[in-house]
Amino acid sequence: MNTLESLFKHFLRDIYYAEKQVLKTLPKMARKAEADELKEAFEHHREETEAQIDNLEKVFEHMGLKPRGVTCEAIQGILDEGKEIMEEAEDGDTRDAGMIAAAQAVEHYEITRYGTMIAWAQTLGLDSEVVQLLKENLDQEYAADRKLSALGEKSLNRQAA
Amino acid sequence: MNTLESLFKHFLRDIYYAEKQVLKTLPKMARKAEADELKEAFEHHREETEAQIDNLEKVFEHMGLKPRGVTCEAIQGILDEGKEIMEEAEDGDTRDAGMIAAAQAVEHYEITRYGTMIAWAQTLGLDSEVVQLLKENLDQEYAADRKLSALGEKSLNRQAA
Repeated sequence: MNTLESLFKHFLRDIYYAEKQVLKTLPKMARKAEADELKEAFEHHREETEAQIDNLEKVFEHMGLKPRGVTCEAIQGILDEGKEIMEEAEDGDTRDAGMIAAAQAVEHYEITRYGTMIAWAQTLGLDSEVVQLLKENLDQEYAADRKLSALGEKSLNRQAA
Repeated sequence: MNTLESLFKHFLRDIYYAEKQVLKTLPKMARKAEADELKEAFEHHREETEAQIDNLEKVFEHMGLKPRGVTCEAIQGILDEGKEIMEEAEDGDTRDAGMIAAAQAVEHYEITRYGTMIAWAQTLGLDSEVVQLLKENLDQEYAADRKLSALGEKSLNRQAA
């Protein structure tokens, strides 16, 4: 990790690992979701995540690298906490609120990482398609986070009522 | 974790732990920072973090709880990666870029958690001072993240030059 380029490669492998973990977890979250809208949101984001992984593989290719992940403890920690909530919360609305919070923590991690990687890719003068691919992913994470905020508000209003 | 209130208490203990870890790490980051502005930003945020921990202790008090943390793997993962970068990066500008990225991942985690906790506190009808204390912390994290973005841009411009 001694040059910006090596840091960029490390972050690429870290986010690749993270997206793959998220891909595995989203179907479980969709099954456990109480509200139909939330179920659909998780299913939709699973499809998006699949496309994002394809985008990251294109970035690896542009850099002449084989796609490979490195363990990302941050995502692991967020997802583990989310799983605990999924298993322990018996009340559907509480479980939904907890899963939304976990999913938003995932989105925020990905938002900050894609933001950093876009800035570094520009500084490194990487192919403009690399920047474009990362921006596509970033925009989807922002949209997913906003959608989760709206669904969270609805869920909380039901609980308050 | 079977009611929104128990989830809220869990998140309170999680963020309390996270802020305490951040408090311990910021002086190390300040020492390792190459750019004076970044050094000052880390030192300033250390002072803010101290005040944020006081705010969280007031929230515990409002809820009739003794302040107590629970291990937060997410923050641990982010800080561990940050430490690795600090130790391995020999070039000052690269190290600064990596530390800024790590610090922004911390801010984003805290932003999402405070956002969730504020929404839950309102739904639970907790004391308005609880919401106010959490909002104070949230606003500081947003400001810290914006400042880090600006410092990151400057650092990258120096590297590009």
